[in-house]
Amino acid sequence: MIIVTRTVKVDTNAPAEEGFVAIYNITPKVQQHLVESYVANGILTVFLPGTTAAIGTIEYEAGLLSDFKNMWSRIVPRDLVYTHKFLWEENNACSHVRASLMGASLVVPLVNKRLILGQYQQIILVEFDNRTRNRQVVLQFMGEKGTAEY
Amino acid sequence: MIIVTRTVKVDTNAPAEEGFVAIYNITPKVQQHLVESYVANGILTVFLPGTTAAIGTIEYEAGLLSDFKNMWSRIVPRDLVYTHKFLWEENNACSHVRASLMGASLVVPLVNKRLILGQYQQIILVEFDNRTRNRQVVLQFMGEKGTAEY
Amino acid sequence: MIIVTRTVKVDTNAPAEEGFVAIYNITPKVQQHLVESYVANGILTVFLPGTTAAIGTIEYEAGLLSDFKNMWSRIVPRDLVYTHKFLWEENNACSHVRASLMGASLVVPLVNKRLILGQYQQIILVEFDNRTRNRQVVLQFMGEKGTAEY
Repeated sequence: MIIVTRTVKVDTNAPAEEGFVAIYNITPKVQQHLVESYVANGILTVFLPGTTAAIGTIEYEAGLLSDFKNMWSRIVPRDLVYTHKFLWEENNACSHVRASLMGASLVVPLVNKRLILGQYQQIILVEFDNRTRNRQVVLQFMGEKGTAEY
Repeated sequence: MIIVTRTVKVDTNAPAEEGFVAIYNITPKVQQHLVESYVANGILTVFLPGTTAAIGTIEYEAGLLSDFKNMWSRIVPRDLVYTHKFLWEENNACSHVRASLMGASLVVPLVNKRLILGQYQQIILVEFDNRTRNRQVVLQFMGEKGTAEY
Repeated sequence: MIIVTRTVKVDTNAPAEEGFVAIYNITPKVQQHLVESYVANGILTVFLPGTTAAIGTIEYEAGLLSDFKNMWSRIVPRDLVYTHKFLWEENNACSHVRASLMGASLVVPLVNKRLILGQYQQIILVEFDNRTRNRQVVLQFMGEKGTAEY
Protein backbone atom coordinates (compact mmCIF):
# COMPACT_ATOMS: atom_id res chain seq x y z
CA MET A 1 0.00 0.00 0.00
CA ILE A 2 1.13 3.51 -0.79
CA ILE A 3 0.00 6.61 1.06
CA VAL A 4 0.92 9.96 -0.47
CA THR A 5 -0.21 13.23 1.09
CA ARG A 6 -0.03 16.50 -0.83
CA THR A 7 -1.44 20.00 -0.51
CA VAL A 8 -2.99 22.26 -3.11
CA LYS A 9 -2.55 25.91 -2.24
CA VAL A 10 -5.24 28.33 -3.36
CA ASP A 11 -5.31 32.05 -2.59
CA THR A 12 -9.01 32.79 -2.31
CA ASN A 13 -11.24 35.83 -2.39
CA ALA A 14 -15.03 35.66 -2.11
CA PRO A 15 -16.21 39.23 -2.74
CA ALA A 16 -19.39 40.71 -1.29
CA GLU A 17 -20.81 41.32 -4.78
CA GLU A 18 -20.69 37.57 -5.40
CA GLY A 19 -22.55 36.93 -2.13
CA PHE A 20 -19.36 35.79 -0.36
CA VAL A 21 -19.02 32.61 -2.40
CA ALA A 22 -16.03 31.89 -4.65
CA ILE A 23 -15.61 28.55 -6.42
CA TYR A 24 -12.20 27.19 -7.45
CA ASN A 25 -11.71 24.24 -9.80
CA ILE A 26 -8.81 22.29 -8.30
CA THR A 27 -9.15 19.26 -10.59
CA PRO A 28 -6.13 20.06 -12.81
CA LYS A 29 -3.85 20.30 -9.76
CA VAL A 30 -5.35 17.12 -8.33
CA GLN A 31 -4.67 15.31 -11.62
CA GLN A 32 -1.05 16.47 -11.55
CA HIS A 33 -0.53 15.17 -8.01
CA LEU A 34 -2.22 11.91 -8.96
CA VAL A 35 0.33 11.31 -11.71
CA GLU A 36 3.16 11.95 -9.27
CA SER A 37 1.67 9.74 -6.55
CA TYR A 38 2.11 6.42 -8.41
CA VAL A 39 -1.15 5.22 -6.85
CA ALA A 40 -3.04 3.24 -9.51
CA ASN A 41 -6.01 1.92 -7.56
CA GLY A 42 -7.54 3.09 -4.33
CA ILE A 43 -8.98 6.31 -3.07
CA LEU A 44 -8.29 10.01 -3.08
CA THR A 45 -9.43 11.88 0.02
CA VAL A 46 -9.82 15.64 -0.49
CA PHE A 47 -10.04 17.55 2.79
CA LEU A 48 -10.33 21.24 3.67
CA PRO A 49 -8.74 22.15 7.00
CA GLY A 50 -10.80 25.12 8.13
CA THR A 51 -14.33 26.17 9.05
CA THR A 52 -15.35 28.74 6.43
CA ALA A 53 -14.75 26.82 3.19
CA ALA A 54 -15.90 23.48 1.79
CA ILE A 55 -15.10 20.74 -0.74
CA GLY A 56 -17.42 19.34 -3.39
CA THR A 57 -18.00 18.69 -7.07
CA ILE A 58 -19.86 20.62 -9.76
CA GLU A 59 -20.09 21.09 -13.51
CA TYR A 60 -17.76 24.08 -13.69
CA GLU A 61 -19.79 26.31 -16.01
CA ALA A 62 -20.16 30.05 -15.40
CA GLY A 63 -23.95 30.14 -15.41
CA LEU A 64 -24.17 27.25 -13.00
CA LEU A 65 -21.57 28.74 -10.67
CA SER A 66 -23.79 31.80 -10.46
CA ASP A 67 -26.86 29.64 -9.74
CA PHE A 68 -24.95 27.80 -7.02
CA LYS A 69 -23.92 31.10 -5.40
CA ASN A 70 -27.51 32.32 -5.46
CA MET A 71 -28.63 29.17 -3.68
CA TRP A 72 -26.36 30.04 -0.76
CA SER A 73 -27.72 33.59 -0.58
CA ARG A 74 -31.22 32.13 -0.36
CA ILE A 75 -30.77 29.36 2.19
CA VAL A 76 -28.03 30.92 4.37
CA PRO A 77 -28.35 34.69 3.80
CA ARG A 78 -25.63 36.99 5.05
CA ASP A 79 -27.94 39.70 6.37
CA LEU A 80 -29.74 37.69 9.05
CA VAL A 81 -29.17 38.35 12.73
CA TYR A 82 -26.40 35.94 13.71
CA THR A 83 -24.96 35.35 17.18
CA HIS A 84 -21.43 34.47 16.10
CA LYS A 85 -20.71 37.90 14.66
CA PHE A 86 -21.43 39.75 17.86
CA LEU A 87 -18.88 37.71 19.73
CA TRP A 88 -16.06 37.85 17.25
CA GLU A 89 -16.89 40.92 15.16
CA GLU A 90 -15.78 39.03 12.08
CA ASN A 91 -19.24 39.19 10.56
CA ASN A 92 -18.70 35.81 8.90
CA ALA A 93 -21.23 33.67 10.74
CA CYS A 94 -22.95 32.82 7.45
CA SER A 95 -19.60 31.60 6.09
CA HIS A 96 -19.29 29.09 8.92
CA VAL A 97 -22.88 27.89 8.66
CA ARG A 98 -22.56 27.37 4.90
CA ALA A 99 -19.28 25.49 5.25
CA SER A 100 -20.62 23.17 7.95
CA LEU A 101 -23.66 22.36 5.84
CA MET A 102 -21.69 21.61 2.67
CA GLY A 103 -18.90 19.56 4.24
CA ALA A 104 -15.12 19.41 4.43
CA SER A 105 -14.35 16.04 2.84
CA LEU A 106 -14.78 14.23 -0.46
CA VAL A 107 -13.58 10.75 -1.41
CA VAL A 108 -13.07 9.76 -5.05
CA PRO A 109 -12.15 6.24 -6.22
CA LEU A 110 -9.04 5.76 -8.36
CA VAL A 111 -8.95 3.03 -10.99
CA ASN A 112 -5.95 2.46 -13.25
CA LYS A 113 -4.52 5.86 -12.30
CA ARG A 114 -7.76 7.63 -13.20
CA LEU A 115 -10.13 9.56 -10.97
CA ILE A 116 -13.60 8.12 -11.57
CA LEU A 117 -15.25 11.49 -12.14
CA GLY A 118 -18.16 12.16 -14.48
CA GLN A 119 -17.36 13.76 -17.83
CA TYR A 120 -18.18 17.28 -16.65
CA GLN A 121 -17.60 16.76 -12.92
CA GLN A 122 -14.90 18.91 -11.38
CA ILE A 123 -13.54 18.90 -7.81
CA ILE A 124 -14.04 22.31 -6.23
CA LEU A 125 -12.93 24.34 -3.25
CA VAL A 126 -15.75 26.67 -2.20
CA GLU A 127 -14.60 29.74 -0.27
CA PHE A 128 -17.29 31.32 1.91
CA ASP A 129 -15.18 33.64 4.08
CA ASN A 130 -15.47 37.43 3.91
CA ARG A 131 -11.74 38.12 3.59
CA THR A 132 -8.91 36.80 1.47
CA ARG A 133 -7.56 33.46 2.62
CA ASN A 134 -4.60 31.24 1.76
CA ARG A 135 -6.12 27.77 1.65
CA GLN A 136 -4.21 24.51 1.75
CA VAL A 137 -6.44 21.71 0.50
CA VAL A 138 -5.12 18.30 1.60
CA LEU A 139 -5.02 15.47 -0.93
CA GLN A 140 -4.31 11.98 0.30
CA PHE A 141 -3.86 9.18 -2.20
CA MET A 142 -4.10 5.69 -0.68
CA GLY A 143 -3.94 2.43 -2.56
CA GLU A 144 -1.79 0.15 -4.66
CA LYS A 145 0.17 0.03 -7.87
CA GLY A 146 -1.22 -2.27 -10.54
CA THR A 147 -4.38 -3.05 -12.42
CA ALA A 148 -7.79 -3.32 -10.78
CA GLU A 149 -10.90 -5.11 -11.87
CA TYR A 150 -13.33 -2.53 -13.20
CA MET B 1 -4.88 -5.21 1.24
CA ILE B 2 -7.60 -5.89 -1.27
CA ILE B 3 -9.15 -3.26 -3.54
CA VAL B 4 -12.26 -4.27 -5.45
CA THR B 5 -14.10 -1.79 -7.66
CA ARG B 6 -17.60 -2.51 -8.91
CA THR B 7 -20.44 -0.57 -10.49
CA VAL B 8 -24.15 -0.58 -9.73
CA LYS B 9 -26.21 0.34 -12.78
CA VAL B 10 -29.49 2.14 -12.19
CA ASP B 11 -31.81 3.40 -14.93
CA THR B 12 -33.32 6.50 -13.38
CA ASN B 13 -36.31 8.70 -14.00
CA ALA B 14 -37.17 11.72 -11.82
CA PRO B 15 -40.55 12.90 -13.10
CA ALA B 16 -41.78 16.49 -12.92
CA GLU B 17 -44.73 15.48 -10.75
CA GLU B 18 -42.27 14.28 -8.11
CA GLY B 19 -40.43 17.62 -8.25
CA PHE B 20 -37.54 16.11 -10.26
CA VAL B 21 -36.30 13.95 -7.41
CA ALA B 22 -36.19 10.14 -7.56
CA ILE B 23 -34.63 8.07 -4.78
CA TYR B 24 -33.21 4.58 -5.36
CA ASN B 25 -32.27 2.18 -2.58
CA ILE B 26 -29.04 0.55 -3.78
CA THR B 27 -28.26 -1.24 -0.49
CA PRO B 28 -29.26 -4.75 -1.66
CA LYS B 29 -26.94 -4.50 -4.66
CA VAL B 30 -24.17 -3.10 -2.46
CA GLN B 31 -24.56 -6.03 -0.06
CA GLN B 32 -24.30 -8.48 -2.93
CA HIS B 33 -21.06 -6.91 -4.18
CA LEU B 34 -19.72 -6.86 -0.62
CA VAL B 35 -20.14 -10.63 -0.34
CA GLU B 36 -18.30 -11.10 -3.63
CA SER B 37 -15.50 -8.69 -2.71
CA TYR B 38 -14.02 -10.84 0.10
CA VAL B 39 -13.16 -7.65 1.99
CA ALA B 40 -13.87 -8.28 5.68
CA ASN B 41 -12.64 -5.08 7.29
CA GLY B 42 -12.03 -1.65 5.82
CA ILE B 43 -14.12 0.86 3.95
CA LEU B 44 -16.65 1.04 1.19
CA THR B 45 -16.55 4.21 -0.91
CA VAL B 46 -19.76 4.93 -2.84
CA PHE B 47 -19.29 7.52 -5.58
CA LEU B 48 -21.58 9.01 -8.20
CA PRO B 49 -19.81 10.08 -11.39
CA GLY B 50 -21.97 12.93 -12.66
CA THR B 51 -23.27 16.36 -11.74
CA THR B 52 -27.05 15.97 -11.48
CA ALA B 53 -27.36 13.12 -8.97
CA ALA B 54 -26.07 12.46 -5.46
CA ILE B 55 -25.31 9.73 -2.90
CA GLY B 56 -26.55 9.54 0.69
CA THR B 57 -28.44 7.53 3.28
CA ILE B 58 -32.05 7.63 4.47
CA GLU B 59 -34.70 5.53 6.17
CA TYR B 60 -36.31 4.25 2.98
CA GLU B 61 -39.97 4.76 3.90
CA ALA B 62 -42.50 6.15 1.41
CA GLY B 63 -43.72 9.01 3.57
CA LEU B 64 -40.21 10.13 4.35
CA LEU B 65 -39.12 9.94 0.71
CA SER B 66 -41.96 12.33 -0.06
CA ASP B 67 -40.86 14.66 2.75
CA PHE B 68 -37.29 14.58 1.45
CA LYS B 69 -38.45 15.47 -2.08
CA ASN B 70 -40.51 18.35 -0.73
CA MET B 71 -37.45 19.71 1.06
CA TRP B 72 -35.66 20.00 -2.29
CA SER B 73 -38.59 21.83 -3.86
CA ARG B 74 -38.47 24.32 -0.99
CA ILE B 75 -34.74 25.05 -0.76
CA VAL B 76 -33.77 24.66 -4.45
CA PRO B 77 -37.00 25.27 -6.40
CA ARG B 78 -37.12 24.46 -10.07
CA ASP B 79 -39.05 27.56 -11.13
CA LEU B 80 -36.51 30.22 -10.12
CA VAL B 81 -34.64 32.21 -12.71
CA TYR B 82 -31.42 30.27 -13.28
CA THR B 83 -28.50 31.24 -15.47
CA HIS B 84 -27.43 27.73 -16.44
CA LYS B 85 -30.61 26.96 -18.32
CA PHE B 86 -30.30 29.86 -20.69
CA LEU B 87 -26.89 28.71 -21.78
CA TRP B 88 -27.61 25.06 -22.29
CA GLU B 89 -31.38 24.96 -22.74
CA GLU B 90 -31.49 21.83 -20.64
CA ASN B 91 -33.54 23.51 -17.95
CA ASN B 92 -31.85 21.42 -15.29
CA ALA B 93 -29.94 24.07 -13.36
CA CYS B 94 -31.79 23.14 -10.18
CA SER B 95 -30.67 19.52 -10.66
CA HIS B 96 -27.03 20.58 -10.65
CA VAL B 97 -27.38 22.88 -7.65
CA ARG B 98 -29.14 20.18 -5.62
CA ALA B 99 -26.53 17.57 -6.52
CA SER B 100 -23.62 19.83 -5.60
CA LEU B 101 -25.19 20.64 -2.25
CA MET B 102 -25.93 17.01 -1.33
CA GLY B 103 -22.62 15.50 -2.43
CA ALA B 104 -21.25 12.73 -4.63
CA SER B 105 -19.46 10.50 -2.12
CA LEU B 106 -20.20 8.39 0.94
CA VAL B 107 -17.82 6.22 2.96
CA VAL B 108 -19.10 3.35 5.12
CA PRO B 109 -16.91 1.24 7.42
CA LEU B 110 -16.88 -2.54 6.97
CA VAL B 111 -16.40 -4.80 9.99
CA ASN B 112 -16.40 -8.60 9.74
CA LYS B 113 -17.91 -8.41 6.24
CA ARG B 114 -20.76 -6.19 7.44
CA LEU B 115 -21.57 -2.62 6.48
CA ILE B 116 -21.91 -0.66 9.73
CA LEU B 117 -25.27 0.88 8.82
CA GLY B 118 -28.06 1.72 11.25
CA GLN B 119 -31.00 -0.67 11.44
CA TYR B 120 -33.16 1.39 9.07
CA GLN B 121 -30.37 3.18 7.21
CA GLN B 122 -30.23 2.54 3.47
CA ILE B 123 -27.69 3.76 0.91
CA ILE B 124 -29.41 5.79 -1.77
CA LEU B 125 -28.82 7.22 -5.20
CA VAL B 126 -30.77 10.46 -5.60
CA GLU B 127 -31.56 11.39 -9.18
CA PHE B 128 -32.24 15.10 -9.73
CA ASP B 129 -32.05 15.33 -13.52
CA ASN B 130 -35.04 16.17 -15.70
CA ARG B 131 -34.61 13.30 -18.15
CA THR B 132 -34.04 9.56 -17.90
CA ARG B 133 -30.45 8.63 -17.13
CA ASN B 134 -28.40 5.43 -16.98
CA ARG B 135 -26.36 5.82 -13.82
CA GLN B 136 -23.30 3.82 -12.90
CA VAL B 137 -22.64 4.17 -9.19
CA VAL B 138 -19.05 3.21 -8.32
CA LEU B 139 -18.42 0.99 -5.29
CA GLN B 140 -14.90 0.56 -4.07
CA PHE B 141 -14.16 -1.91 -1.29
CA MET B 142 -10.74 -1.46 0.32
CA GLY B 143 -9.40 -3.41 3.26
CA GLU B 144 -8.27 -6.79 4.51
CA LYS B 145 -9.51 -10.29 5.06
CA GLY B 146 -9.82 -11.34 8.70
CA THR B 147 -11.39 -10.29 11.96
CA ALA B 148 -11.26 -6.75 13.27
CA GLU B 149 -11.54 -5.44 16.79
CA TYR B 150 -14.99 -3.97 17.21
CA MET C 1 -1.74 -1.84 6.77
CA ILE C 2 -3.56 -1.44 10.06
CA ILE C 3 -7.33 -1.18 10.41
CA VAL C 4 -8.67 -0.24 13.83
CA THR C 5 -12.40 0.24 14.42
CA ARG C 6 -13.67 1.97 17.55
CA THR C 7 -16.92 3.49 18.75
CA VAL C 8 -17.59 6.75 20.54
CA LYS C 9 -20.71 6.58 22.67
CA VAL C 10 -22.70 9.75 23.14
CA ASP C 11 -25.97 10.04 25.05
CA THR C 12 -27.81 12.74 23.17
CA ASN C 13 -30.74 15.05 23.80
CA ALA C 14 -31.94 17.65 21.28
CA PRO C 15 -34.63 19.60 23.13
CA ALA C 16 -37.56 21.33 21.46
CA GLU C 17 -36.43 24.73 22.74
CA GLU C 18 -33.19 24.31 20.75
CA GLY C 19 -35.18 23.47 17.60
CA PHE C 20 -34.39 19.76 17.91
CA VAL C 21 -30.69 20.19 17.13
CA ALA C 22 -27.93 19.28 19.59
CA ILE C 23 -24.26 19.45 18.63
CA TYR C 24 -21.58 17.32 20.33
CA ASN C 25 -17.85 17.89 19.94
CA ILE C 26 -16.37 14.40 19.69
CA THR C 27 -12.85 15.53 18.74
CA PRO C 28 -11.25 14.86 22.15
CA LYS C 29 -12.51 11.27 22.13
CA VAL C 30 -11.39 10.85 18.52
CA GLN C 31 -7.91 12.09 19.44
CA GLN C 32 -7.72 9.60 22.29
CA HIS C 33 -8.66 6.68 20.02
CA LEU C 34 -6.15 7.91 17.44
CA VAL C 35 -3.32 7.67 19.96
CA GLU C 36 -4.37 4.13 20.83
CA SER C 37 -4.75 3.06 17.20
CA TYR C 38 -1.04 3.28 16.30
CA VAL C 39 -2.03 4.44 12.81
CA ALA C 40 0.42 7.16 11.77
CA ASN C 41 -0.60 7.88 8.20
CA GLY C 42 -3.83 7.17 6.39
CA ILE C 43 -7.45 8.07 6.93
CA LEU C 44 -10.00 8.28 9.66
CA THR C 45 -13.57 7.51 8.63
CA VAL C 46 -16.23 8.85 11.00
CA PHE C 47 -19.64 7.29 10.43
CA LEU C 48 -23.01 7.65 12.13
CA PRO C 49 -25.17 4.52 12.01
CA GLY C 50 -28.70 5.90 12.07
CA THR C 51 -31.08 8.12 10.17
CA THR C 52 -31.81 11.06 12.50
CA ALA C 53 -28.29 12.32 13.25
CA ALA C 54 -25.31 13.42 11.17
CA ILE C 55 -21.53 13.92 11.19
CA GLY C 56 -19.63 17.07 10.24
CA THR C 57 -17.18 19.73 11.33
CA ILE C 58 -17.64 23.21 12.77
CA GLU C 59 -15.88 25.87 14.81
CA TYR C 60 -17.32 24.83 18.16
CA GLU C 61 -18.27 28.27 19.51
CA ALA C 62 -21.55 28.87 21.34
CA GLY C 63 -22.78 31.71 19.14
CA LEU C 64 -22.07 29.77 15.99
CA LEU C 65 -23.76 26.63 17.29
CA SER C 66 -26.87 28.75 17.80
CA ASP C 67 -26.59 30.14 14.27
CA PHE C 68 -26.21 26.62 12.88
CA LYS C 69 -29.32 25.46 14.75
CA ASN C 70 -31.30 28.41 13.42
CA MET C 71 -30.30 27.49 9.88
CA TRP C 72 -31.97 24.09 10.32
CA SER C 73 -35.15 25.67 11.66
CA ARG C 74 -35.26 27.85 8.54
CA ILE C 75 -34.52 25.35 5.79
CA VAL C 76 -36.12 22.21 7.31
CA PRO C 77 -38.73 23.54 9.78
CA ARG C 78 -40.36 21.15 12.23
CA ASP C 79 -43.87 22.57 11.90
CA LEU C 80 -44.47 21.81 8.22
CA VAL C 81 -46.93 19.14 7.14
CA TYR C 82 -44.84 16.00 6.78
CA THR C 83 -45.99 12.60 5.55
CA HIS C 84 -43.63 10.49 7.66
CA LYS C 85 -45.12 11.57 10.96
CA PHE C 86 -48.61 10.42 10.12
CA LEU C 87 -47.37 6.93 9.39
CA TRP C 88 -45.19 6.44 12.43
CA GLU C 89 -46.53 8.98 14.90
CA GLU C 90 -42.98 9.76 15.91
CA ASN C 91 -43.25 13.34 14.70
CA ASN C 92 -39.59 13.34 13.70
CA ALA C 93 -39.83 13.62 9.92
CA CYS C 94 -37.80 16.83 10.01
CA SER C 95 -35.05 14.98 11.91
CA HIS C 96 -34.73 12.45 9.11
CA VAL C 97 -34.76 15.06 6.35
CA ARG C 98 -32.08 17.14 8.08
CA ALA C 99 -29.87 14.10 8.68
CA SER C 100 -30.12 12.91 5.07
CA LEU C 101 -29.20 16.37 3.81
CA MET C 102 -26.19 16.79 6.10
CA GLY C 103 -24.72 13.32 5.69
CA ALA C 104 -23.54 10.37 7.77
CA SER C 105 -19.84 10.16 6.90
CA LEU C 106 -16.68 12.23 7.16
CA VAL C 107 -13.15 11.28 6.15
CA VAL C 108 -10.13 13.04 7.66
CA PRO C 109 -6.52 12.42 6.57
CA LEU C 110 -3.97 11.38 9.21
CA VAL C 111 -0.35 12.47 8.86
CA ASN C 112 2.33 11.56 11.43
CA LYS C 113 -0.36 10.55 13.93
CA ARG C 114 -2.15 13.89 13.57
CA LEU C 115 -5.63 14.61 12.23
CA ILE C 116 -5.25 17.29 9.56
CA LEU C 117 -7.97 19.54 10.98
CA GLY C 118 -8.01 23.32 10.84
CA GLN C 119 -7.01 25.20 13.99
CA TYR C 120 -10.59 25.74 15.13
CA GLN C 121 -12.18 22.81 13.29
CA GLN C 122 -13.89 20.23 15.48
CA ILE C 123 -15.55 16.94 14.50
CA ILE C 124 -19.19 16.95 15.54
CA LEU C 125 -22.11 14.63 16.00
CA VAL C 126 -25.34 16.49 15.25
CA GLU C 127 -28.41 15.01 16.91
CA PHE C 128 -31.71 15.91 15.20
CA ASP C 129 -34.07 13.41 16.84
CA ASN C 130 -36.91 14.47 19.13
CA ARG C 131 -36.10 12.04 21.95
CA THR C 132 -33.00 11.04 23.88
CA ARG C 133 -30.75 8.64 22.01
CA ASN C 134 -27.66 6.57 22.80
CA ARG C 135 -25.46 7.09 19.77
CA GLN C 136 -22.49 4.99 18.81
CA VAL C 137 -20.33 6.87 16.34
CA VAL C 138 -18.01 4.53 14.44
CA LEU C 139 -14.36 5.53 13.98
CA GLN C 140 -12.24 3.55 11.59
CA PHE C 141 -8.53 4.26 11.35
CA MET C 142 -6.87 2.79 8.26
CA GLY C 143 -3.25 3.22 7.25
CA GLU C 144 0.33 2.51 8.14
CA LYS C 145 2.89 3.11 10.83
CA GLY C 146 5.76 5.38 9.87
CA THR C 147 6.45 8.79 8.42
CA ALA C 148 4.59 10.18 5.41
CA GLU C 149 5.63 12.80 2.92
CA TYR C 150 3.80 15.99 3.79
